[in-house]
Amino acid sequence: MIWQSIYVVLMFQFVLVFGAYDLKNLNIWPMPESVEYGAKSIFLSKEFHLKTDGSKYPDASGILKDGFTRLLDVITANNIIEFNSKVDDSLLLQGINVVILSDSDELQYGIDESYKLLVHANGKQNYAEIEAATVYGALHALQTFSQLCHFNFKSRKLVISQLPWTITDKPRFSYRGLLIDTSRHYQPLPMIKKVIDSMAYAKLVKCIALAYCRYTGFSFRNTFFSKIMGCYAKKRGINVLAELDVPGHAVSWGVGYPELWPSKNCTEPLDVSNEFTFKLINGVLSDFSKIFKYKFVHLGGDEVDTSCWSATPRIKKWLEQKGFNESQAYEYFVLKAQKIAVSHGYEVINWEETFNNFGSKLDRKTVVHNWLGSGVAQKVVESGLRCIVSNQDSWYLDHLDATWQQFYTNEPLTNITNPNLQKLVLGGEVCMWGEHVDGSDIEQTIWPRAAAAAERLWTNVGRLAKNPKDVGLRLMHFRCLLNQRGVAAAPLDGPGRVAPIEPGSCYVQ
Amino acid sequence: MIWQSIYVVLMFQFVLVFGAYDLKNLNIWPMPESVEYGAKSIFLSKEFHLKTDGSKYPDASGILKDGFTRLLDVITANNIIEFNSKVDDSLLLQGINVVILSDSDELQYGIDESYKLLVHANGKQNYAEIEAATVYGALHALQTFSQLCHFNFKSRKLVISQLPWTITDKPRFSYRGLLIDTSRHYQPLPMIKKVIDSMAYAKLVKCIALAYCRYTGFSFRNTFFSKIMGCYAKKRGINVLAELDVPGHAVSWGVGYPELWPSKNCTEPLDVSNEFTFKLINGVLSDFSKIFKYKFVHLGGDEVDTSCWSATPRIKKWLEQKGFNESQAYEYFVLKAQKIAVSHGYEVINWEETFNNFGSKLDRKTVVHNWLGSGVAQKVVESGLRCIVSNQDSWYLDHLDATWQQFYTNEPLTNITNPNLQKLVLGGEVCMWGEHVDGSDIEQTIWPRAAAAAERLWTNVGRLAKNPKDVGLRLMHFRCLLNQRGVAAAPLDGPGRVAPIEPGSCYVQ
Repeated sequence: MIWQSIYVVLMFQFVLVFGAYDLKNLNIWPMPESVEYGAKSIFLSKEFHLKTDGSKYPDASGILKDGFTRLLDVITANNIIEFNSKVDDSLLLQGINVVILSDSDELQYGIDESYKLLVHANGKQNYAEIEAATVYGALHALQTFSQLCHFNFKSRKLVISQLPWTITDKPRFSYRGLLIDTSRHYQPLPMIKKVIDSMAYAKLVKCIALAYCRYTGFSFRNTFFSKIMGCYAKKRGINVLAELDVPGHAVSWGVGYPELWPSKNCTEPLDVSNEFTFKLINGVLSDFSKIFKYKFVHLGGDEVDTSCWSATPRIKKWLEQKGFNESQAYEYFVLKAQKIAVSHGYEVINWEETFNNFGSKLDRKTVVHNWLGSGVAQKVVESGLRCIVSNQDSWYLDHLDATWQQFYTNEPLTNITNPNLQKLVLGGEVCMWGEHVDGSDIEQTIWPRAAAAAERLWTNVGRLAKNPKDVGLRLMHFRCLLNQRGVAAAPLDGPGRVAPIEPGSCYVQ
Repeated sequence: MIWQSIYVVLMFQFVLVFGAYDLKNLNIWPMPESVEYGAKSIFLSKEFHLKTDGSKYPDASGILKDGFTRLLDVITANNIIEFNSKVDDSLLLQGINVVILSDSDELQYGIDESYKLLVHANGKQNYAEIEAATVYGALHALQTFSQLCHFNFKSRKLVISQLPWTITDKPRFSYRGLLIDTSRHYQPLPMIKKVIDSMAYAKLVKCIALAYCRYTGFSFRNTFFSKIMGCYAKKRGINVLAELDVPGHAVSWGVGYPELWPSKNCTEPLDVSNEFTFKLINGVLSDFSKIFKYKFVHLGGDEVDTSCWSATPRIKKWLEQKGFNESQAYEYFVLKAQKIAVSHGYEVINWEETFNNFGSKLDRKTVVHNWLGSGVAQKVVESGLRCIVSNQDSWYLDHLDATWQQFYTNEPLTNITNPNLQKLVLGGEVCMWGEHVDGSDIEQTIWPRAAAAAERLWTNVGRLAKNPKDVGLRLMHFRCLLNQRGVAAAPLDGPGRVAPIEPGSCYVQ
């Protein structure tokens, strides 16, 4: 009697909690390049397992194995949801067979992230099939697969619907970044780990730029982040890129070495006249090169107010000797820092001010990081340099008034039609500056807006919605997915990290 | 050269990140009953382990063992922080020896939660000592121990300072509750698990009241929560108590059984005239009794607008036959529901409206749950009934304007001086109602304000600060501890879940 009632309420719950899971709809985020699907369903077997028949990848460091374990964790909500065993074998999916063509697990800019995913509707010994060029493409395929699984409230079992699935997929841009400012506030390690996890859910990120040395905060990182670099992020297919912002935003350096400050009362930019400044940059970049294996390093170069240089007698004297005005000294500093980074094998990313001031002088391998406004990418690529887009009006997460719709519609290739120039736009990066963000609010400030940018950066332009309205339900579904996985993604309506409205499910906020 | 600089910055970081860790200060939250400490320090050994020499507790279900594993996880930030091995044995703490006097692991209202914790300054084979009546007292001791450990940025090792430690501790109140409203919004399981974890950090909670059946949401819970009840919460010493709110706040019942609604247009309170209403309550409480082993069940009884009863012909007719007016019918309903709960072995908690309207008729074992205002507890205990304090002006977490200082200074025994009457106040409960709370903001709305109430409920009244200013730094330290453990506790300044202010460490928000 009771259980009857509970079943009826279950159905009600089903509508409430999985209301947005419209079986006629695709609920995969970001949208793959090509998707075909049917109308059949299948249960996941209790012995659901990983096979690698025909794979060339040895998985010596367990990247694939751990990825599969994480898949099981998220689809079973850490073993709360049950698999099925009581149904006919032909209605069960036994596992996934993953074939990886490359035996290397090097994680680097531009690696092949493509994959193919097949889920057959039936047959004895039915296994889903994944084929990928690299293990990191296979990890993306597992993320997509996890989004095909859902909990059926009537059977109380894990189900995949809309079978058979045929999905082929690859990213539109290789550089899909999220910047975390670990300097302005203390960002706890567990939070950064969760952000890395959720980046992988959104296929968002090949890199985090950690804003090192802004005000405070770099050495503390070395202890912890080096361990993350070595293992945690790489196992999730995420490169970590460090920003060493010079000569501005570097006040904290002077705490260790006061001589790097022009003077006690005029503490930035770093003293351009002091050879030790560059010796220290060389030392830090030498340390970085042992930890951060990504081919790029970020040298900042933004928001440099050089007035302290002229205001400090010994530096003023040096400027006169060199015959430099302040802006020439700024150029001298940035180019000298670039040479040091190049000597450590890095290609350099600099904020757009360096391009706006002396673009023609920059190392030809420089990647210019746009942030001030739109239209910069076009100028950069026309000058032959490469570009990353982060225009603050649309892709700065700390701008709470920037809606997910703005994040979604921000097009990196605006007004860039020449295919050769388009290739010079490496991608983009959403930036989580930390003035008002710490362990208490970073997740809901990043999500779900970062996911909107993730689809812009991942999905083939032809499959991107012209009108964000057309993807609202699907993004809402992804937001609920993040919540279900313990990520505090905020509701979609309203500004960043808005509180949910009146009672309802996570699908109707 | 570089490393010198990094060390200097490290010290700077130390001040920034552990600035509030004043070694002349006690940074334990909530404050134990009695604490003695010295000025020595010791490293934790690489082989830091658990011993149970002389313990009567078999730990068949692994409650102590898992508690110790969680201790290692939090003090090492999941194995990021290193133990020490390179120093002299006499400077190393080898582990903890835990002696438990009771062999039972029954978790119930009123069990002995006391413990004694000793950490000696030196000696070969140096083990910390914990003695507790029950395993749950021992879990509290492990939480206290975890707060004695900190990361030394110079040695980069785990250290305990202020040795030797002699701590004896027990809670002031046995009922220290946090209510989570799982009905108005979907609260993801990982979030509820994290809330349970953080309750244990604050020694806050013997119980969560899950607000069942408010609008929606109970059956979904049965699948998941029953597993949590059985294992997750109990392993952390946390009882889970369910609220079955009747006759009001029960609209969702009618989705399964429309006949429970007075009519389609007048959907609450539940139909008092329909015997099936009570049959269903009996059925649900029968289910509850298999899942929720805590001696109390919450039957709600609040905010009942009975006008639908008179407005519905068949119920109006029934009222006339019974000679009831609406308020008599409300009393009839509540008392009948109480009898059903008692028949399932429960003692009943009801919201204060039941007491305010017909307190003398309530089952003598009723626990009255105060929420409307202050002064109620005094009336309740003077009438001989027991009371739980949750006055909304100070202990409703959804009231964002209620500051941590208000949470801290809210005294359950206000104007209750007679020791026999004081015993009738079981404790209190902070309430996280879910109108604007879901997986995206529940943690920072609960913490750190709930921790302020936790000390009020745990700590001996003589050791509570008269002026909350005196505990601000210590609570700030606990807030940072929560952040370091991945709990999104908000800054202390300002209203609930406020964003952090300008750049700084988590100690100066």
